[in-house]
Amino acid sequence: LEAQSSNLINGLCRQRNGLLSDVFEPESFQEQSHTVVRRLVEHLSDSSIKGLDLIDPAVLSKAAKDLMTSERDTIAAFDEKRLSEIVDLYIRTGIQVHSPGYLGRQFSGVIPLGGVVDFVSAVVNQPSSFYEAAQLPNVAERLMADELNQFIGWDPDSFAMVTTSGGSLANLTALLAARNKAFPDFWSHGSPAGSNAGSQAAEGQARPAIAVGADVHYSVSRAAGIIGIGESQIVRLPLNGDQQIRMDQVRPTLEAAEKRGLKVFCLVASAGTTSVGAFDPIGELGELARELNIWLHVDGAHGASLLVSDRLRHRLRGIEKADSLAWDAHKMMFVPAPCTLLFYRDKQDSLGAFRQHASYVFDEEPDPYTALDSGDKNFECTKRPMIMALWVLWAMHGRALFAEKIEQLCELTENLHQLLSGEPDFETVHRPEANILCFRYRPADLRDEDVHGFQVDIRNRIKHRGRFFISKVDIDGVAALRVVVMNHRITPEHFRLLLEEIRLVGSDLPAVAHEARSR
Amino acid sequence: LEAQSSNLINGLCRQRNGLLSDVFEPESFQEQSHTVVRRLVEHLSDSSIKGLDLIDPAVLSKAAKDLMTSERDTIAAFDEKRLSEIVDLYIRTGIQVHSPGYLGRQFSGVIPLGGVVDFVSAVVNQPSSFYEAAQLPNVAERLMADELNQFIGWDPDSFAMVTTSGGSLANLTALLAARNKAFPDFWSHGSPAGSNAGSQAAEGQARPAIAVGADVHYSVSRAAGIIGIGESQIVRLPLNGDQQIRMDQVRPTLEAAEKRGLKVFCLVASAGTTSVGAFDPIGELGELARELNIWLHVDGAHGASLLVSDRLRHRLRGIEKADSLAWDAHKMMFVPAPCTLLFYRDKQDSLGAFRQHASYVFDEEPDPYTALDSGDKNFECTKRPMIMALWVLWAMHGRALFAEKIEQLCELTENLHQLLSGEPDFETVHRPEANILCFRYRPADLRDEDVHGFQVDIRNRIKHRGRFFISKVDIDGVAALRVVVMNHRITPEHFRLLLEEIRLVGSDLPAVAHEARSR
Repeated sequence: LEAQSSNLINGLCRQRNGLLSDVFEPESFQEQSHTVVRRLVEHLSDSSIKGLDLIDPAVLSKAAKDLMTSERDTIAAFDEKRLSEIVDLYIRTGIQVHSPGYLGRQFSGVIPLGGVVDFVSAVVNQPSSFYEAAQLPNVAERLMADELNQFIGWDPDSFAMVTTSGGSLANLTALLAARNKAFPDFWSHGSPAGSNAGSQAAEGQARPAIAVGADVHYSVSRAAGIIGIGESQIVRLPLNGDQQIRMDQVRPTLEAAEKRGLKVFCLVASAGTTSVGAFDPIGELGELARELNIWLHVDGAHGASLLVSDRLRHRLRGIEKADSLAWDAHKMMFVPAPCTLLFYRDKQDSLGAFRQHASYVFDEEPDPYTALDSGDKNFECTKRPMIMALWVLWAMHGRALFAEKIEQLCELTENLHQLLSGEPDFETVHRPEANILCFRYRPADLRDEDVHGFQVDIRNRIKHRGRFFISKVDIDGVAALRVVVMNHRITPEHFRLLLEEIRLVGSDLPAVAHEARSR
Repeated sequence: LEAQSSNLINGLCRQRNGLLSDVFEPESFQEQSHTVVRRLVEHLSDSSIKGLDLIDPAVLSKAAKDLMTSERDTIAAFDEKRLSEIVDLYIRTGIQVHSPGYLGRQFSGVIPLGGVVDFVSAVVNQPSSFYEAAQLPNVAERLMADELNQFIGWDPDSFAMVTTSGGSLANLTALLAARNKAFPDFWSHGSPAGSNAGSQAAEGQARPAIAVGADVHYSVSRAAGIIGIGESQIVRLPLNGDQQIRMDQVRPTLEAAEKRGLKVFCLVASAGTTSVGAFDPIGELGELARELNIWLHVDGAHGASLLVSDRLRHRLRGIEKADSLAWDAHKMMFVPAPCTLLFYRDKQDSLGAFRQHASYVFDEEPDPYTALDSGDKNFECTKRPMIMALWVLWAMHGRALFAEKIEQLCELTENLHQLLSGEPDFETVHRPEANILCFRYRPADLRDEDVHGFQVDIRNRIKHRGRFFISKVDIDGVAALRVVVMNHRITPEHFRLLLEEIRLVGSDLPAVAHEARSR
């Protein structure tokens, strides 16, 4: 009885104090953690073939709303059942990156330990732009930079690396560094040659311009629009049949641009295009760029990771001639997103992207501690210590973990390409250089003019059936089906099942019916 | 014996297959998770007063390097001891956001459940820019936007919200939307009036310019440098003694800018400046901005969260007159970083920041699913589902959790300010409006010309002693000590201990000695 009444009093007190301290109780944290770990273990153990479980947004919204407390004026108590339901719904309604049915995007099925380390980061919440606040992440960035630079091959004393929240931000940052180097007044005064739509360049000055492979990621042309270059000042370099920049066309294209009043200060090549995973001829581009005094930025968001493999490194031959390289570890290094590394050949260049004054974060006099700060070199002020998952995996398992997984994925993709060549109703559209494979389903009775819409319809049908998840991409203006092999548990057998699925939904979609619909 | 030999064979097989599949074993994930949960529970249970344990980068680097496997050619096996050591080092060498000794920055001691939810996000790795890949996060964004807009007060049918990776990116995005609205050709063609350093605007056109409170966050003036406006085209609005924009000076300052050939298209106010937590007069600025047809962006990275409190909401009075609002949930909503919400009064405006074409992610024809995509409205392509921690906390505990914690922090800060007023050797420099308090230590014998250097030295001494962590900021050109009360477990008693610590290190730092050193 005494115990009961004591419990009652404790309960009342707690209620009176509000539940704020309960919410911060380490014991609750422990229970909550165990709840989600149980659920995640279950999820990771499920090797069934799953695509998307696509739900009407209105229906899902209602379900989510029903999971919200209606209490507004006092703190509602923790409810384990509600947490479980939310986590279930969260897992079930997302992209199934760990299932062999997931074949459609470059998002990683993360290496589980990477998720565990990221959990620590979420709780300790160290902001990694400043050494004093996040010492180990800053040191880990240096160690990881040195490890990876061994495969790039720059002078260990003069290269630099910063982490950024995603590949788009890395591309933007590199282009800013290039812009500010070529046009030192741009930062303070804007474009040196304002270019009204249609009007001539002011005072006969050339307009700053960026040359890119015609299939470069959309974040690069976006960056031109963002940083005041203007998207119209993008010069697109023609591609060959393998979707790589044609070397013989680069010089003539740049010369033609110059005649149109453009001053190309930066060239962006891809190491693994998003569409098909094509690698531009980096070494040759690097030589030309150096001759013409142009900055060469390599968007290796997808493909830079191949550098860690002895067998695949040659795809980036000549990378040491680049000025900067963007590398998404959240793609082919399989860590939680985002985790992007931006490398510069010359550490002086890394200081040129931004300028700032802020007495509350930047110290007046540098010391051994602030020397490791990256706040002046990266866009973010508060930056997640994203390096930690990558560094811990590398520290624990070594380079071979990444090399082996990447090699398996690329080898499998080659096998799938061969497998497709033996199927007369499928058309391959490129020779895969990495783990992206694009192809078209072309049954004999499909008319040429229907090929595009037919692929789009097939992709949508597949998506809605929910067994496999694939994507699509336009190649030379015509849609193709696209698989990205991110999961080493995928086998040729899974791919055969996918082809069956494609044939099945295709048979249900006679070209003639499609034609009627597309009118 | 049979069991033994079977184990041996299994072991050999596993070795032959490589350890790749071991690394993905759900059982290992479970053990690793339990290891870090144990360590995090210990950490969260520690309520001792801790500042920084600042280690020489070279020493820490050596320690970290020693934790890395030297294996390069085969996958090294998981080592639980190594994981524990890494996690220990990680926790120990970072900012101690959960300790009452942590008084120096705006980084949150996260609500633990927020960390747990973020853990799920790390493992399931759903990219939230696209509904089909991350259905619940996209729905949660809409629900959370509706919840918070109740306190902003915009038309529920026509406002919009996107999540972005940090406040700097939210400010950049809002400025881009404003730029592209005022200058529709800027995206494609760059600045409408190129402004060579020192030269006149081309063809007599006004140069695009941005007006800001003189103490705006550095990310705003950086954004001007980034987006091709030019940092010199920043017009700084004078502040009053409470570090707020002086309304009587706005119109004259804008008029003077116009005479200098500037066209101000955007005005940036702060709802909680970083330095002192000052709130600009948003409602009055909003009225003026509408009259002058200028976009009003409010950087509420720190202070927007006060909107959820009935007692504190008035600090942002008139917020419904703004065009956009940046709101860091990773500050005063206490979720893992980054988690920033960018609100627009008019959803049409939210479409103006970026333009893009990318057949691999953007569908040709919008449908009920793609209607929820944010990829066209946010900078990121791969975006972490950052909303999840915030939404789950809100769903579970309701608004009161945030309101109560914020009210406690602001009330305590007011109390500390009163407490300081009673200490003759301390000088208060502003009336705190939120949970940031700046002050100076001025013992009687300190000469005026030494005040600045003395505060800087005190801050550094405090930092190196490692008991408390505080920051410093320049106010009207003179350094001040700065505390940010982010932890509701901090009491006036802790603050008294901090004042003792300041006096102690101050007594050790005679002004005269300081003077000698600063020469």
